[in-house]
Amino acid sequence: MALDETRFAASCLAELSSVLQKKSIILGCDIDRVASYWDVAPTRALALLMPNNTSEVSEVMRICHKYKQPVVTQGGKTNCVQSANSNPEEIILSTEKLNQIESIDIVNAVASVEAGVVLQTLQKACLEKDMLFPLDLGSRGSCTIGGNVSTNAGGISVLRYGMMRDLVLGLEAVLSDGTIVSSMNQMLKNNSAYDVKQLFIGSEGTLGVVTRAVVKLVPKPLSCQTVLIGVVNFSDVIEILNETRRRLAGILSAFEVMWGPYFQAVTEDGGHSSPISRGHGYYVLLEAEGSDPERDDQLFQKLLEQLYLRGAIEDAVVAQSEADRIGLWQIREDFGVILEDTPVFLYDVSLPISSMEEYVDLTIKAVKEKWSLSEVYALGHIADGNIHFFVRPNAGPATFSLHQTCDALMYKALKKYHGSISAEHGIGIEKKQWLSQSRSETEISVMKALKHTLDPEKLLNPGRVFD
Amino acid sequence: MALDETRFAASCLAELSSVLQKKSIILGCDIDRVASYWDVAPTRALALLMPNNTSEVSEVMRICHKYKQPVVTQGGKTNCVQSANSNPEEIILSTEKLNQIESIDIVNAVASVEAGVVLQTLQKACLEKDMLFPLDLGSRGSCTIGGNVSTNAGGISVLRYGMMRDLVLGLEAVLSDGTIVSSMNQMLKNNSAYDVKQLFIGSEGTLGVVTRAVVKLVPKPLSCQTVLIGVVNFSDVIEILNETRRRLAGILSAFEVMWGPYFQAVTEDGGHSSPISRGHGYYVLLEAEGSDPERDDQLFQKLLEQLYLRGAIEDAVVAQSEADRIGLWQIREDFGVILEDTPVFLYDVSLPISSMEEYVDLTIKAVKEKWSLSEVYALGHIADGNIHFFVRPNAGPATFSLHQTCDALMYKALKKYHGSISAEHGIGIEKKQWLSQSRSETEISVMKALKHTLDPEKLLNPGRVFD
Repeated sequence: MALDETRFAASCLAELSSVLQKKSIILGCDIDRVASYWDVAPTRALALLMPNNTSEVSEVMRICHKYKQPVVTQGGKTNCVQSANSNPEEIILSTEKLNQIESIDIVNAVASVEAGVVLQTLQKACLEKDMLFPLDLGSRGSCTIGGNVSTNAGGISVLRYGMMRDLVLGLEAVLSDGTIVSSMNQMLKNNSAYDVKQLFIGSEGTLGVVTRAVVKLVPKPLSCQTVLIGVVNFSDVIEILNETRRRLAGILSAFEVMWGPYFQAVTEDGGHSSPISRGHGYYVLLEAEGSDPERDDQLFQKLLEQLYLRGAIEDAVVAQSEADRIGLWQIREDFGVILEDTPVFLYDVSLPISSMEEYVDLTIKAVKEKWSLSEVYALGHIADGNIHFFVRPNAGPATFSLHQTCDALMYKALKKYHGSISAEHGIGIEKKQWLSQSRSETEISVMKALKHTLDPEKLLNPGRVFD
Repeated sequence: MALDETRFAASCLAELSSVLQKKSIILGCDIDRVASYWDVAPTRALALLMPNNTSEVSEVMRICHKYKQPVVTQGGKTNCVQSANSNPEEIILSTEKLNQIESIDIVNAVASVEAGVVLQTLQKACLEKDMLFPLDLGSRGSCTIGGNVSTNAGGISVLRYGMMRDLVLGLEAVLSDGTIVSSMNQMLKNNSAYDVKQLFIGSEGTLGVVTRAVVKLVPKPLSCQTVLIGVVNFSDVIEILNETRRRLAGILSAFEVMWGPYFQAVTEDGGHSSPISRGHGYYVLLEAEGSDPERDDQLFQKLLEQLYLRGAIEDAVVAQSEADRIGLWQIREDFGVILEDTPVFLYDVSLPISSMEEYVDLTIKAVKEKWSLSEVYALGHIADGNIHFFVRPNAGPATFSLHQTCDALMYKALKKYHGSISAEHGIGIEKKQWLSQSRSETEISVMKALKHTLDPEKLLNPGRVFD
């Protein structure tokens, strides 16, 4: 940073000190935390600000706007695409003190929360009132509602309850100049002109800082059935999907698929114990949440029997207790063992279900052709059109060039199927160079026009999503 | 229209004639149809254009943009707030020839359709393939998919399946300068940068002309239970709602409530025959769609018995056949008898469920105090927070001033509850003067900035939503 810039930044920080409490400002040299869940390097930033409420967020943005100071908003720092990783010239606006659950309203089935509330905290508070906040994902213990909004989080219950966008009824956000846009609607329906909140959902903090949200709740389910199924072919997966979609209509809440190599890798010695044999082609983890434990259990058993008789199921294990259920989900969610030998590159694509088998086969083939020792692990929320990949090239250290080559192998094959380079993780910094693989020039022009309209100075999460 | 303007319009029309077939252009003087479902006055417009495909829509907009010619897009002309009523200086762009269902894909559970496809046509085509397109509303026989997108249509199944916004996966729209923005995504998940399609959904044709859409389908339900319930108090309605939300979680698909006076009015001599006594305080029309006819029927009966024993239900009739079911729904949907003696003003508000009883009581009181002979009929999708009203002041002819006075009575009481002046009908021309009752100045500023970004010349549905 040149001297003039330093002075300018110092003035900005001085002015910020006048509107925030002392303990809400940590200067860059004193910031003591890692960059993110995925990057243990130390955080680098001009300063870390922790405003206490929307009005303080507005003041922060007003001052930063005056000084043309770039700001990156951080929630739970679990972002997979470096959307919220700061650089030394940026100020971090952390939502960690915006951590109040303002209300959980049973009759209206809504909760009003501040952006920094951790997802699991909200989930638990709702369950205590016999209500369910149905967004759920692996990072539930760290990620925040504001981050969930900003990335339009998906996760394991999208099939039944939708993405975060479908669960947000109202929103409050602060624009880059400090203007507070408050749309804390509580109703399922509100067509009084444009739905302004949609802009902020999924735009990764580049259009506004989300400060509060009203989210939709549903009654806590009264029953839960979980099964892990081993099948031979992907056509069996499709058959099970079509049949359960129809026969468990309305109550099917998760339909996760693990390709054989993923299942084998996470159940190696030292990994999870496997409740089922390890050599199947695919593993389906299926869950239904209903309202009549006894009847739902019968329905579920009957369906599994029929699928077995039709030959779609090779082997299956039904969870007999909550501990069983947790064990099955850990196989799906805890993939630490795969991450042990780096570099491993993470992908999160979506494409039509009918093209999935072909795409995965093509991709594995292409990666193997490039790097004969490589390993590719696929799993995902198939019914949502979403597959996650872990690719370990086994071809040397994690260089930018290696990552690039791998990206090209994964994304170029995708274009043929009109798929998306990001199903739920977003674009951030990591994927922006690949954006044109799934978005047309016209679409990107419209996006840039929106950014220019709401943040002409490019102060909010600059350089994320696109330049 | 002054002479110069006439010449200018003539040049524009001449140029349009060069890109459209002759039969796709009808000049203003030859247009022979009514203004809309709600207004039988003859259509007035410079011309009526019926392009055959997106590329022709693009050409139309390019030419109109060159001549700064305002365009109003028309679908099924069932709009309740005059969004699509043209004036003599406007060109009508009708989507009636964009009427192809391009595909219905069972494995991926999506349909791709042109904007002018009538909702019921799509519903029927999906049912033939054992799939359900779950949007449903009274005007299903006339309204179009494009109109459903533009108004973010709601209707009777929102509780289970969401508004149109929740059912649109992909979209194609033409901007005011003719640019085609095509985002025909087929996946439930796609977070590759901003979700541009959200802009066009619910913006009533003011940001772009919707030409095609990819919509979400679900398997056709295998069972259906319908019941009409008479209850004494609104607290019974709430109890039934809470209990059915929990006990029929996932399969409850409609929860309609008719206030006593509405039910009595539509079942007067010459109206619908009533399958239940006519003097109850409220009538609940409840429907569940499941996947196991026998079991679902038992579940439904058991629930009704429990509610009866608890005293929440005064009387009830369960549909025993499809004919019964249609009969029950006609009471809810066919309110022609109420419209017979004009003027009747139509309202469509939303507010938190817990405030509904108070708001309706206050409103009826206020209207009665103003016009002692007035009649107020309320009904709605309560679980969605949505109430429709028909208000007949019985105070002389339908003057602008009478309508205004009535609007003021309805909307001013709403502000207290942070309700919306439009739950699902939109703003159009009719409600724009009341927009600030449910939207802040800041929200409206953001909306206007979006309009300016995408349609700076104000050519698309000008004067609708806001000026």
